[in-house]
Amino acid sequence: MTKATLPVFADIVAARQRLKGEAVVTPLLESQLLNEAVGGRVLIKAECLQRTGSFKFRGAWNFISSLGDEARRGGVVAYSSGNHAQGVAAAAALRKLPAVIVMPEDTPEIKKANTRAYGAEIVIYDRATQSREQIAGAIARERGAVIVPPYEHRHIIAGQGTAGLELVEQAAALGLRLDTVLTPVGGGGLTAGLALAIAGASPVTAMLCVEPDGFDDYRRSLQSGRRERNPAATGSICDALMAQEPGELTFAVNQRLVSGGLAVSEDEVKHAMRQAFSLLKLVVEPGGAVALAAVLAGRIETAGRATCVIVSGGNVDARLFADVLAG
Amino acid sequence: MTKATLPVFADIVAARQRLKGEAVVTPLLESQLLNEAVGGRVLIKAECLQRTGSFKFRGAWNFISSLGDEARRGGVVAYSSGNHAQGVAAAAALRKLPAVIVMPEDTPEIKKANTRAYGAEIVIYDRATQSREQIAGAIARERGAVIVPPYEHRHIIAGQGTAGLELVEQAAALGLRLDTVLTPVGGGGLTAGLALAIAGASPVTAMLCVEPDGFDDYRRSLQSGRRERNPAATGSICDALMAQEPGELTFAVNQRLVSGGLAVSEDEVKHAMRQAFSLLKLVVEPGGAVALAAVLAGRIETAGRATCVIVSGGNVDARLFADVLAG
Repeated sequence: MTKATLPVFADIVAARQRLKGEAVVTPLLESQLLNEAVGGRVLIKAECLQRTGSFKFRGAWNFISSLGDEARRGGVVAYSSGNHAQGVAAAAALRKLPAVIVMPEDTPEIKKANTRAYGAEIVIYDRATQSREQIAGAIARERGAVIVPPYEHRHIIAGQGTAGLELVEQAAALGLRLDTVLTPVGGGGLTAGLALAIAGASPVTAMLCVEPDGFDDYRRSLQSGRRERNPAATGSICDALMAQEPGELTFAVNQRLVSGGLAVSEDEVKHAMRQAFSLLKLVVEPGGAVALAAVLAGRIETAGRATCVIVSGGNVDARLFADVLAG
Repeated sequence: MTKATLPVFADIVAARQRLKGEAVVTPLLESQLLNEAVGGRVLIKAECLQRTGSFKFRGAWNFISSLGDEARRGGVVAYSSGNHAQGVAAAAALRKLPAVIVMPEDTPEIKKANTRAYGAEIVIYDRATQSREQIAGAIARERGAVIVPPYEHRHIIAGQGTAGLELVEQAAALGLRLDTVLTPVGGGGLTAGLALAIAGASPVTAMLCVEPDGFDDYRRSLQSGRRERNPAATGSICDALMAQEPGELTFAVNQRLVSGGLAVSEDEVKHAMRQAFSLLKLVVEPGGAVALAAVLAGRIETAGRATCVIVSGGNVDARLFADVLAG
């Protein structure tokens, strides 16, 4: 991994130009009742309202738009538990490129169905016994296709970081300087993009990342200073956050710019989903709700402060959502 | 009813100034998959993301902000099935005024709970046997409070109309001239505000209003040219749209500016709620989903056109929402 591949602030500014008119400038929402409950201002960056229902479209579009005509010719391949899949499928469809997505068999149905609906071909693998990287690599070689990595790439990280530029500007328009930004973290691409954007545009703002209990590899890695692995590959309600360890590139960025990590329980995640339903009118998937869960569970000081929470996605099956609402 | 009380376009422009920084400029959302399904562009004006979870905050804030200090002194009273209640309660709380809300006993729990949470006092009445106007009138006389009408007032209509100014500008920013705007209609305040805004800012755009089957007083009134009543006062899943007849003032506006009305079935409403869940990640209440339902049910021509759908609110009980998701 050479220094040259590390993303920098200027990459995010360039990504924003590429995303203009294609990605949604997602709203920064607020609930009077939520603010009263925590005694401060909580600003929700609603990435579930992004095209394809998660922030992943940002990075996928930025990556695919940066490819030359020659590189694009064989189409694209991606491996993903679902949100990156949809982001890549939608971006490829807009660019009229064929896309193959390698997905684990336990992917929520809504993510499979929508990925197909965007026109992508799906290849299923077993998360426990097969390597998605190897399967995708073989398909890419066979078809002359380009792999769109889920997080380990400068253009992916820069694309996700555009959400960070937006939220800093949206907060400023409300007269707010943010004290803290909390984001869900899986492989670390969104976190790295946000951290770079915020370090450049609002350096007084602290950055924290949040994971589900038992899948807190990023929290432990930030503590130990080296990339730690999760003991299990499956078993969290937060299907979007089960990367087994921090990416090498994302960790290089996040180790420098992220203050620390937090972990939340499954019950706390479900409570956050219910609060997003009743107070924000947002459909939030489990993995998208962990940062909100950390705030609602009082994991950080919010009284008298301005805290921004990234709600990173809303691709959740109706049955699971109904079960969560039933409490 | 004197001509002087009819709202005009300039009232909406003035309302926008009053709402600035207080109401949310709600996003105009779009789904690639939804567009493909109808063969045109469908733009969703997401008023469920408005403060208090419905457009009603706009009119309530505009009305209360227009009151003089003397008039405000005794606080405000409103009668409402729930969304106007929350709008008035939140606007009054922000202005530090006491608020009493007269609500029917069959109001969804979430609407009662949130109205209380905003600090209002609630008085319950029986929709079938008691007159909410009389109860509210008695409270107003007793306390020297001002009644905030749900739709029959220039400032209420003008406040709701700010959503129309926004959507015309948001569509223009996407390079779109809207062919049609569809909105849910109850008493007609939102419809009148939108119709005035659109007539002024985008006169080529047609305006339609949508109701649930059996409560299509506005559709029939627009056809007959006089205010028709609904046969029943209760019994629709769309609790927000059960006004028994068009308002006198709103009808005077809408008769002139609205092309017609449509009606949708309960099943079509539930389907629209499920589509909003899976494609838009929005929590939409039944009454808020009728315009989307009309588009999804093919009630108007959308192929090759740009259609804007107002999703007017998201205040739905978790149990009902879970039942709707279960299909």
